[in-house]
Amino acid sequence: MAGSSLGTIFKLVTFGESHGTCIGGIIEGLPSNQKIDLLAIQNELNKRKPGQSDISSSRKESDKVELLSGIFNGYSTGTPIGFIIRNKDVKSADYSHLKNTFRPSHADLTYQKKYGIRDHRGGGRSSARETACRVVAGAIAKQVLDQIGISFLTYVDQIGNLQLNKPLNVTKEKIETNSCRCPDKELAAKMEELILNVKAKGDTIGGCIKGIINGVPIGLGEPIFDKLNADLGKAMLSINAVKGFEIGSGFNAATMKGSEHNDIINQDFTTKSNNSGGIQGGISNGMPICFRVAFKPVATLMQNQKSITKDGKEEILEGKGRHDPCVVPRAVPIVEAMAAIVILDFYLRQKSTSL
Amino acid sequence: MAGSSLGTIFKLVTFGESHGTCIGGIIEGLPSNQKIDLLAIQNELNKRKPGQSDISSSRKESDKVELLSGIFNGYSTGTPIGFIIRNKDVKSADYSHLKNTFRPSHADLTYQKKYGIRDHRGGGRSSARETACRVVAGAIAKQVLDQIGISFLTYVDQIGNLQLNKPLNVTKEKIETNSCRCPDKELAAKMEELILNVKAKGDTIGGCIKGIINGVPIGLGEPIFDKLNADLGKAMLSINAVKGFEIGSGFNAATMKGSEHNDIINQDFTTKSNNSGGIQGGISNGMPICFRVAFKPVATLMQNQKSITKDGKEEILEGKGRHDPCVVPRAVPIVEAMAAIVILDFYLRQKSTSL
Amino acid sequence: MAGSSLGTIFKLVTFGESHGTCIGGIIEGLPSNQKIDLLAIQNELNKRKPGQSDISSSRKESDKVELLSGIFNGYSTGTPIGFIIRNKDVKSADYSHLKNTFRPSHADLTYQKKYGIRDHRGGGRSSARETACRVVAGAIAKQVLDQIGISFLTYVDQIGNLQLNKPLNVTKEKIETNSCRCPDKELAAKMEELILNVKAKGDTIGGCIKGIINGVPIGLGEPIFDKLNADLGKAMLSINAVKGFEIGSGFNAATMKGSEHNDIINQDFTTKSNNSGGIQGGISNGMPICFRVAFKPVATLMQNQKSITKDGKEEILEGKGRHDPCVVPRAVPIVEAMAAIVILDFYLRQKSTSL
Amino acid sequence: MAGSSLGTIFKLVTFGESHGTCIGGIIEGLPSNQKIDLLAIQNELNKRKPGQSDISSSRKESDKVELLSGIFNGYSTGTPIGFIIRNKDVKSADYSHLKNTFRPSHADLTYQKKYGIRDHRGGGRSSARETACRVVAGAIAKQVLDQIGISFLTYVDQIGNLQLNKPLNVTKEKIETNSCRCPDKELAAKMEELILNVKAKGDTIGGCIKGIINGVPIGLGEPIFDKLNADLGKAMLSINAVKGFEIGSGFNAATMKGSEHNDIINQDFTTKSNNSGGIQGGISNGMPICFRVAFKPVATLMQNQKSITKDGKEEILEGKGRHDPCVVPRAVPIVEAMAAIVILDFYLRQKSTSL
Repeated sequence: MAGSSLGTIFKLVTFGESHGTCIGGIIEGLPSNQKIDLLAIQNELNKRKPGQSDISSSRKESDKVELLSGIFNGYSTGTPIGFIIRNKDVKSADYSHLKNTFRPSHADLTYQKKYGIRDHRGGGRSSARETACRVVAGAIAKQVLDQIGISFLTYVDQIGNLQLNKPLNVTKEKIETNSCRCPDKELAAKMEELILNVKAKGDTIGGCIKGIINGVPIGLGEPIFDKLNADLGKAMLSINAVKGFEIGSGFNAATMKGSEHNDIINQDFTTKSNNSGGIQGGISNGMPICFRVAFKPVATLMQNQKSITKDGKEEILEGKGRHDPCVVPRAVPIVEAMAAIVILDFYLRQKSTSL
Repeated sequence: MAGSSLGTIFKLVTFGESHGTCIGGIIEGLPSNQKIDLLAIQNELNKRKPGQSDISSSRKESDKVELLSGIFNGYSTGTPIGFIIRNKDVKSADYSHLKNTFRPSHADLTYQKKYGIRDHRGGGRSSARETACRVVAGAIAKQVLDQIGISFLTYVDQIGNLQLNKPLNVTKEKIETNSCRCPDKELAAKMEELILNVKAKGDTIGGCIKGIINGVPIGLGEPIFDKLNADLGKAMLSINAVKGFEIGSGFNAATMKGSEHNDIINQDFTTKSNNSGGIQGGISNGMPICFRVAFKPVATLMQNQKSITKDGKEEILEGKGRHDPCVVPRAVPIVEAMAAIVILDFYLRQKSTSL
Repeated sequence: MAGSSLGTIFKLVTFGESHGTCIGGIIEGLPSNQKIDLLAIQNELNKRKPGQSDISSSRKESDKVELLSGIFNGYSTGTPIGFIIRNKDVKSADYSHLKNTFRPSHADLTYQKKYGIRDHRGGGRSSARETACRVVAGAIAKQVLDQIGISFLTYVDQIGNLQLNKPLNVTKEKIETNSCRCPDKELAAKMEELILNVKAKGDTIGGCIKGIINGVPIGLGEPIFDKLNADLGKAMLSINAVKGFEIGSGFNAATMKGSEHNDIINQDFTTKSNNSGGIQGGISNGMPICFRVAFKPVATLMQNQKSITKDGKEEILEGKGRHDPCVVPRAVPIVEAMAAIVILDFYLRQKSTSL
Repeated sequence: MAGSSLGTIFKLVTFGESHGTCIGGIIEGLPSNQKIDLLAIQNELNKRKPGQSDISSSRKESDKVELLSGIFNGYSTGTPIGFIIRNKDVKSADYSHLKNTFRPSHADLTYQKKYGIRDHRGGGRSSARETACRVVAGAIAKQVLDQIGISFLTYVDQIGNLQLNKPLNVTKEKIETNSCRCPDKELAAKMEELILNVKAKGDTIGGCIKGIINGVPIGLGEPIFDKLNADLGKAMLSINAVKGFEIGSGFNAATMKGSEHNDIINQDFTTKSNNSGGIQGGISNGMPICFRVAFKPVATLMQNQKSITKDGKEEILEGKGRHDPCVVPRAVPIVEAMAAIVILDFYLRQKSTSL
């Protein structure tokens, strides 16, 4: 109810603020006897952590996860996995000017008005630092799903007006060849240049991430309200800075005719086209699940901005602190984690539908 | 878990198939002592029902709702409201050819594979007929929200490539001046022409609906996973045929710079622009909540299409039955109902956050 | 949240008041392809319905259930089952004196204070009439569990001070030989006499029901909070008039030593004794699950009683209307239904714990 | 779903095994701006911790709680409170003989069969060590409830056959005068003697705890399934070793007549008697809530017992390790914590029922 819980069977609950002792969470519902590869979890965290390249924040966090329970001799026991990630490179003094000031397009105002109190240091609970916990749960989910043959390709396909639009054979390797996490090397170079230009001006820029989930069996997703696309959408829209979600043909579907849009079914029950994005009637149809997520530009600028105090006075907010000029490349492992959490949850839900 | 439940405090559970005796639902969590205006509910149902104009299906349903409980002398008692809507104009014979055949881009295949059995008549549970139940719950939610000063404007802003793009003062009256439910009369005429053209060819067309929610107080929405935008998104993506959802600047945010996108805060805590779409950090900020929903074209065509039988044999599917060439105008009350359900639920959730 | 929902995967939501049009509910999460025997459901309802013998209320209700959805050609489709039971023999005038009066040990006062409004006719929502809906869901659950080899024996083992205490081989047949539903015929006769005596004086009497669940496989129940005994207990304590629940040795355990109480394990993993009542650490151990439920005497007497009006004035409440002198025999199918609902829910939950 | 979550608005999720690094949890839904008194939490933990007297286990744990988030300058922020309690005095070697052996009336067998793997050290997740986390959440809930005027009296009223049965004015101070936590000093001395006698023989003994909750306003509790007594019952039955729960008149109600049992209402809406135990129709009526909880004797004996290996071989289990001869006095803070968690949750639920 208070919003820090996700999922129904495979569940994640998280806690923690950007500048507290640590962040962490509890994962419930992981099937027992699953081998847990700690290094694989850490690798995902490393893709998300700040300080990994010129185009990300310079905050230095090792983001080392400590698993506290639910694992015995390297295997899951079926009981909850508690975990923490310590906050180390905390410079709270950088935020003291924000104690009584609301930054534009941040959650400062809304938290203050909702709760009547807020931890202003580093954005407190509203900081995207919290997403590291999602990456932990997602990395565990991916290990489990990998055995069933479900795999993920997640990459940046747009930064500003630069959009990937030539067909290409995306692989995990191509995505990781560059700091933009765009599988088209040439486009990635342009994106990086754009981000550095924007950064030089103290500005920020938005973008889009595309996700493809392969190997999902037919039958995942629960009509009516818990359609697989609906829960995937919710998961993505719960990520900081996300402004849009589309599945399959997405917003382009609005411009199409039925005769163009319909996915003709082959004799093996695959479809010729995939405008459905792998989901029909809210249930996976065995085709790759394809979706796209839009991110707004980071709200914290390295420019002066007008801001407002608690008492309604105008104040000039100086651009300082350590922030990302473009959060989209670092959001790739977050999007992938959320997708994995949702898919594993629905996979286990489906198990409970028959005797 | 099985997906037919929505909401946490203000809850809706639905049942029923397109060609069964009736559809219906139970509304839990409606505060007591609320005056229930049955006529207002019926008016919303009338906006959704088939047979209302040339651009909708010719199935004739009075869609008369019967409220069975939870109301005493015209006021809610705080106990569950059970309701049914009878199915009357059912021509199941029209669907007998679909018993063993999967229509392209329908849920026939996915239901059959998920459950191993399906009611093929009129699409059974996967039919959009189910959305009438959402309209009932939404109409009740709107009555309650109206007292608090929360109101809704929902309209068609795109059919095919025809998109509303001039600024205009939208009112409920303007929306209802035409069968397209587009507040721009001229554009509405073009849209209607487009739909009739498409219909003449036995084809269908997609579109977009825009929703604006006025009067939402600051503070609704629960970080982290139950951000108000996330649950609004899920609600919309759970509607049949929806392929995309965006809030505020939406997908356009991907192309923007932070200096353009940030909503500068005024001294009264309103904002100069509203790229945030009324939600910051997942919590309402008091500005109008603005979102957009994309619908694919209806999958059932009045043309012959290739389809596939249970046994994997190709079959030519004749275009017959009674269907909409464009479902978007009839989806307006559904989108509005879903928005109202979500907002009332979060309003009541917020009540439970303080002593 | 509003309390009319039960279960996690196999879910029941109910609606309806004692003197409204009908009561009813929605069952979600029933696996697909289950044969539904309507007659078997009706048989369970007949065990619960009023007017079945001299020791029950004379209200005449056929309690005929109408299943509205979720079933196709006699088999479950995996989609929700909506159902209603009409209220027929409603004599609301019998209750008009209760509009402004709170009966002792009834829910009149608490409903009025909680909601500020109440349907006083026949107790409204607080009437045990609502339990008929539980019997419907339980009867369906029992049909499914029967295939897995899980069966139920539920009977009256105490009325007033008359308690079953000789060991006997309980069978379904023995339970149904008498209107008290006590498998010991001689004791049943004494119980009946006691109830008729009490009835003659316009008084009522309490009692206990014992439940035995056979064939439950090892492994049902979720530590920590959702222990199988905890959810069974909650289910029983949610039945009108229930004041106590015990599992296995129950309250007697408080007087025992560990050396007496421990259930020594046999080589086939059964146990020599069953003080655990078939559940250890919250998880079924394969032994019969044994529990006992205490019911208070019915609060409505056929005697004059002191009562109080809304305005705090004393009033003499005349004993009238149609009520049971002892509700325990009619509660047998309700207890059994609740047990079946809980067991099927945990059975399906267990399915979701492995890949 | 996996069972380690409790509550709907005020929620607790726990993790951790008896011999892991630590145990801990996350508390969601605590209202913001509540002063958090860490010392008061620690005091409750001290009442539960082992090694506090001759009649408890000699395991030495400081049980120091570390609050990791959700608190800013001593006040709750409305965001989740993560916490851990480290395991220090862990002698896992004491348990190596249990790796492949199932102890009678323990959860060894059921965990092994449910999960196919178990952490056998100190009982792993099934250890009552987990209840320390409940005490943390309960202590916080009590601080909040105290402001509203809701208070708790919880004490031992039975050990073996020694039962408190004279009326006495119970106070918190009287309860804490002796290691048995029985407010009758003389009886407490006899209880202590009984426990020491049982301990001397390497045996254990059961008992009962009584709870009284004062100051609960009228209106808490949700009909139908979430009756306040039902959720209180579930909470108590989820505590390790609990075999029974009764509210108000409890099992004694089975022997009573309606004319004896009915609680006549006074003009101020209090009742003359309180057989209802403060709850009518599942909703609090403003009278003290009174309940009783039965505990079985501890299963681990300091005697030799027959036990069984994974492979079904008989084995003599030696009595060793550090265990309680009677767990009931240490369970007092656990029962009180569970009561507080439930009451705060329902208090907040009630907030969400009106606009």
